[in-house]
Amino acid sequence: MDSKPNAIVAQSGGPTAVINSSACGVIQEAIKSGKVSRILGAVNGILGVLKEDLFDISAEKPETIEALKQTPAAAIGSCRYKLKSLKESRADFERVLDVFKAHNIRYFFYAGGNDSMDTADKVNKLAADSGYELVCMGIPKTVDNDLAFTDHCPGYPSVAKYVATCAMEAGRDTEALYTTDTCTILEVMGRNAGWIAAATGLAARGPEDAPHLIYMPEAVFSFDKLVKDVKEVLKELGRVFIVAGEGLKDKDGNYVTADAGVFGKDSFGHVQLGGVAEMLKSVIEKEVGIKARFNKLGTNQRNAMHFASLTDVNEAYMCGQMAVRYAMEGENGKMVTLVRQDSPKYECTTGLAELSDVANGEKKVPPEYINEKGNHITDAMRDYVRPLVRGEAPITIGDDGLPVFMRFERKPLKKKLTKYL
Amino acid sequence: MDSKPNAIVAQSGGPTAVINSSACGVIQEAIKSGKVSRILGAVNGILGVLKEDLFDISAEKPETIEALKQTPAAAIGSCRYKLKSLKESRADFERVLDVFKAHNIRYFFYAGGNDSMDTADKVNKLAADSGYELVCMGIPKTVDNDLAFTDHCPGYPSVAKYVATCAMEAGRDTEALYTTDTCTILEVMGRNAGWIAAATGLAARGPEDAPHLIYMPEAVFSFDKLVKDVKEVLKELGRVFIVAGEGLKDKDGNYVTADAGVFGKDSFGHVQLGGVAEMLKSVIEKEVGIKARFNKLGTNQRNAMHFASLTDVNEAYMCGQMAVRYAMEGENGKMVTLVRQDSPKYECTTGLAELSDVANGEKKVPPEYINEKGNHITDAMRDYVRPLVRGEAPITIGDDGLPVFMRFERKPLKKKLTKYL
Repeated sequence: MDSKPNAIVAQSGGPTAVINSSACGVIQEAIKSGKVSRILGAVNGILGVLKEDLFDISAEKPETIEALKQTPAAAIGSCRYKLKSLKESRADFERVLDVFKAHNIRYFFYAGGNDSMDTADKVNKLAADSGYELVCMGIPKTVDNDLAFTDHCPGYPSVAKYVATCAMEAGRDTEALYTTDTCTILEVMGRNAGWIAAATGLAARGPEDAPHLIYMPEAVFSFDKLVKDVKEVLKELGRVFIVAGEGLKDKDGNYVTADAGVFGKDSFGHVQLGGVAEMLKSVIEKEVGIKARFNKLGTNQRNAMHFASLTDVNEAYMCGQMAVRYAMEGENGKMVTLVRQDSPKYECTTGLAELSDVANGEKKVPPEYINEKGNHITDAMRDYVRPLVRGEAPITIGDDGLPVFMRFERKPLKKKLTKYL
Repeated sequence: MDSKPNAIVAQSGGPTAVINSSACGVIQEAIKSGKVSRILGAVNGILGVLKEDLFDISAEKPETIEALKQTPAAAIGSCRYKLKSLKESRADFERVLDVFKAHNIRYFFYAGGNDSMDTADKVNKLAADSGYELVCMGIPKTVDNDLAFTDHCPGYPSVAKYVATCAMEAGRDTEALYTTDTCTILEVMGRNAGWIAAATGLAARGPEDAPHLIYMPEAVFSFDKLVKDVKEVLKELGRVFIVAGEGLKDKDGNYVTADAGVFGKDSFGHVQLGGVAEMLKSVIEKEVGIKARFNKLGTNQRNAMHFASLTDVNEAYMCGQMAVRYAMEGENGKMVTLVRQDSPKYECTTGLAELSDVANGEKKVPPEYINEKGNHITDAMRDYVRPLVRGEAPITIGDDGLPVFMRFERKPLKKKLTKYL
């Protein structure tokens, strides 16, 4: 038996292009620290902990670990399993601690959004209450960029770079074919926050450039306004390229569309959105009388490793690395934050926020980043996002012309407890 | 008045990442030839000719012309205006010749698909009949890759590289989140030919890799088969990633879905397709009982300059360049073709095909490229597409982290004729 404790790394929620870079930072820094025996991976996030479905990441080849930086999604596996309050999900929380105890896990590094920070916080408090020595550190991760207390979230810069480029490229298509395909709508992610939609505004370097209209959940949306906006752009340019966040809301705060489908809500209780672009298309065709088409990038936008932001990859790594350093320095119950320096040239360092604060916070696109008409962004938003998308992350291309991604061997750790889930 | 004749370049139909590279090849080679006075651009394809809406491309800055190689879509402008038979569209064809005569245009370089080759062929024949000396050369262009007499079509390799990469990336998302988001459907273009869908098969390097199922218009599709296929993959992997061509057909050759919308057909009479992925999603959720989501890349797939194939950019350029060389050598009424050499290392040269032959031909994915079950590709297809997607086309990135594309100044040529359209 090792005398040194073990650490565990887990990934949660929707994947990003760089959540694996954060994992890489944790793993390489934890190995370097010499203070942990093994670094374990929780297969599919907290689900893997509950099921005692673990593997020894530190036994993986160093080149596999290094290649995390070039691999999108979540190589350790992710999930959408939600632990509720300590009262409601007591058994789950206790099981987490039991698994940690069984495997001598004293460090818990959890990359995710506010639900995950909430889980890490509660595990941490339960451990303290029961006298089990545990350090829980959160690593920000969400393409939605809606976590409070951090300048931005790893994952967002890469999706921003990609969707802005997609708007540029598809915008040129609409420009070339405007005599028939006069309107194109690009639907992007963003349930409650319009950060991704807003990022595409960077592509509009001049008035001719797409997108001409950007709709974000933060600005009240109406179909009357849409029709008026479209007609104005058409008069000017003869074509219109629109970016729509998936979670557009009317003046009463209701989603203008909710494609409930068979699985109407995900397990976090979020309404499954979709169909915004289709609805816009249909209204524009009927009310304006022009042909409209739509592109829905879906999960491709959050995994576009092939054009990820180097700034993002580096910062995601730094967040993982610093989570370990802070933990070794005695910090606990915190999430690493990104702190933009007040300098002429973009510089970003890390800070810390209480897990419980992050869990309960939310950061929307502020009014000063949205233009007065509520249909585009301001220079303040451009200044915010521009430095984030800079730099092209290196990728390895195989002999077949396609990117090469890693996969862990995931040799399962021997289970010590009874089956739980 | 110049003693040398003028040349005209036009682009038609759906844009691609490399149709501008072909234009660049035409322009630079025509300038180099010393045999033409000016190279004119027809704004928005044949529409620009009919409207006498022309500009002097040779007066544009050399660096603007060079930057065509890095700019997607159709910088001269494209259209979907269709000229029918000589009998039905007589006035249009005569107008084209009138415009050519008015501007001393003796070379017509037209990049497009079979409809455009048909137009070029008819203009050519009418010119011959009326004793007007004219050389008409076609340059293949279609992401659909369905032109006959050419090994492949410029534009296809880039879309192939991009959609295969998208399948890899979104496939990793499904792999990471399979416990809830068990199925993802990637809808790709391809009205009658499944070449784009087939290309994604390259991403499946091993059985774990996406896509697990590929549906192409060439293989009879049924929802019963879909459900059976999905259940089989689920049993094996616990998740399923599907690529669906937009034009899937049932055993009677009817589209399984046609989202007619307000603009049910485009001006070429093609049914406007869409909604295949949504229909698959709905059937899978209902019949298999798993959550499914879909990504629809739409026009982004054909304009993905940021990850275009270098092979494609070079070959597209070569097609434009060779169109000029062949024309100067006395060829006429031909389309440049790409000829794959029978060599161990991929090599591709050019050949020629009659415009009228290309106009009436069509090339679908052959049975030997589709597996027996009709739900994936064979190694023969892999061998076909692999060399095409190799190499990353260079792009220029601006200080804002996004690609830089060119735009022509498009200083309009003085009109000499009366208004037509």
